[in-house]
Amino acid sequence: MSTTDFTAVARCLSNEYRDLNGTGIETLEEPPSALEFAQLVHVSRPVVIKGFEFPALHRWTRDYLAEKMGDSPISVAVTPNGRGDPSLADSITLGSDGLRYFVEPFVEKMTMNQLLWRLGSGRIDTGEIHYLQSQNGNLFSSGSLKDGSSEFGSLVPDVPREIPWCSEALGLQPDAVNIWIGDERSITSIHSDPYENIYTVVQGEKHFFLLPPSDSWCLEERLYPHATYERQCTSTALELVPSQEDVPPVRWSSILDPEAPNVLPKGVTPIRVTLHPGETLYLPVGWWHYVRQSDWTIALNWWYDPEMRGMPWVLLNFLRNSKRILSGNDEVPPYGLNK
Amino acid sequence: MSTTDFTAVARCLSNEYRDLNGTGIETLEEPPSALEFAQLVHVSRPVVIKGFEFPALHRWTRDYLAEKMGDSPISVAVTPNGRGDPSLADSITLGSDGLRYFVEPFVEKMTMNQLLWRLGSGRIDTGEIHYLQSQNGNLFSSGSLKDGSSEFGSLVPDVPREIPWCSEALGLQPDAVNIWIGDERSITSIHSDPYENIYTVVQGEKHFFLLPPSDSWCLEERLYPHATYERQCTSTALELVPSQEDVPPVRWSSILDPEAPNVLPKGVTPIRVTLHPGETLYLPVGWWHYVRQSDWTIALNWWYDPEMRGMPWVLLNFLRNSKRILSGNDEVPPYGLNK
Repeated sequence: MSTTDFTAVARCLSNEYRDLNGTGIETLEEPPSALEFAQLVHVSRPVVIKGFEFPALHRWTRDYLAEKMGDSPISVAVTPNGRGDPSLADSITLGSDGLRYFVEPFVEKMTMNQLLWRLGSGRIDTGEIHYLQSQNGNLFSSGSLKDGSSEFGSLVPDVPREIPWCSEALGLQPDAVNIWIGDERSITSIHSDPYENIYTVVQGEKHFFLLPPSDSWCLEERLYPHATYERQCTSTALELVPSQEDVPPVRWSSILDPEAPNVLPKGVTPIRVTLHPGETLYLPVGWWHYVRQSDWTIALNWWYDPEMRGMPWVLLNFLRNSKRILSGNDEVPPYGLNK
Repeated sequence: MSTTDFTAVARCLSNEYRDLNGTGIETLEEPPSALEFAQLVHVSRPVVIKGFEFPALHRWTRDYLAEKMGDSPISVAVTPNGRGDPSLADSITLGSDGLRYFVEPFVEKMTMNQLLWRLGSGRIDTGEIHYLQSQNGNLFSSGSLKDGSSEFGSLVPDVPREIPWCSEALGLQPDAVNIWIGDERSITSIHSDPYENIYTVVQGEKHFFLLPPSDSWCLEERLYPHATYERQCTSTALELVPSQEDVPPVRWSSILDPEAPNVLPKGVTPIRVTLHPGETLYLPVGWWHYVRQSDWTIALNWWYDPEMRGMPWVLLNFLRNSKRILSGNDEVPPYGLNK
């Protein structure tokens, strides 16, 4: 069958989902019980949760971070900001060769003080944008990075290693707990994660643009060749450097700004929500998110492995991959061309 | 798009589901907690549960039923058995006019003793098959039939009005609790229900043939004109009587015996499970079931309304109805013809 026909089926499912579920978002005034959260996971729809309390919410100011780990080296993502536009880390970017690449940021070691100087209203403008977004379980991880050995060891006592109502509902521990520090110049390109995500804003504001997994059909995922930002020596500008051919291409949405007019099909309306300090978002597995932030922000997130038994996991993968499966063409060449 | 193309999409999803989830069934040695059951509901896969105890399991013998309500009138479904074959209540049957109908059974009032005489090894053969299957919440109902006013009021103390772990997990009371009494001559035609179903065998054995909702595409649901079995007077044989034109046609599977060779597409393998007395089946919303029984059987079931928020409910309806939606033809004429 043709991919056009798959799109007709997917568009129909997408419409049916939106007709029945709307574009609103529920707010809970206090955290759910484990059983209530299990019910929310079954519904698999974003929810704002208030009242999820832990020490970092009340302790983490610029002064506190400077005091606790001002001179500690941390790994920070750096991207160029030539045009003064906001920068999308982990996103599709046009290279000087006219090809489009999935580009990972340059990772630079700096101290927490150096990062803080580069963020927010009092910042030093270096022509580059810094975002602490290492995403590797930088606070806690089920893998090799154990707490205490992380770059943020001195902040660990301020953050719960797990969320009781979530761990109990899902029957497991988080796979990773991450800290995110950035400002309004960093934007997260639209993507979805294979995790149940609990996301709490500690400082600043985060603005979420959310689409359900049933909208995957209109996000134009394609395979892009991989690249990274690098610099020749410490004082030179960042350059986009295509990776070696043995680095596999990356499947990513071709939609750079889903908020731009006429980019998404008519009727594909997002859920929009702004998280303030102390507010938590339950972002279910597979939901597409495009995230902006105001001023300088700190956020934390807990990633839990999703339930892989049953239809929800099958459907998530089907919605993203079935066009290729159905076309009998699992090996689409990378779409590096400028089109 | 053509319905052939929809079928290609649906077949792909069906294969992916089976590849990842297999055709086995899990058995729990004791009832789940509410939280564990909420997790099972999210997976939405049948599970056998042992150890769900209530008085009926130990009290309900033929003698006990005769003693408690031997002379009480009850409503029993009656179907003809001309050829000695098992009879499918609520199923597709060829009328004398050469058309196929969805036929509801004749409902006859008789006493419990009269029903028991007609069932099992010592039965009187009347050329008709009797099955107590009123399905209207004959024990408890959230509607007008309250307990005490039901035909089975004297059995009510033996049956829990709700299942604590299920009610707590779903956050609601059962919509209906039903008693089923029949023998091996009654077969339930393959269908799916818009309910979460907890089904316990009290006496005898029930043999379930189960297919996931993702197999809906191969069950050949069509619209059939409605009919009922009726008789002219109490001593005459049952006749299939087409209903008036204002009775809407019924959408039902055209597959009369899914166990017959080559009826289902290759690879569409069922979950098969036999329930013995004291065993309970969690049959999730939307799962297709074809049910036989051994000897005379008593069973109970609790129907709970399903979660209608989120993708699972949308997908269930999509899998059953999208062929019509996509073809732009919501009003398919009844398939009464013998084809």
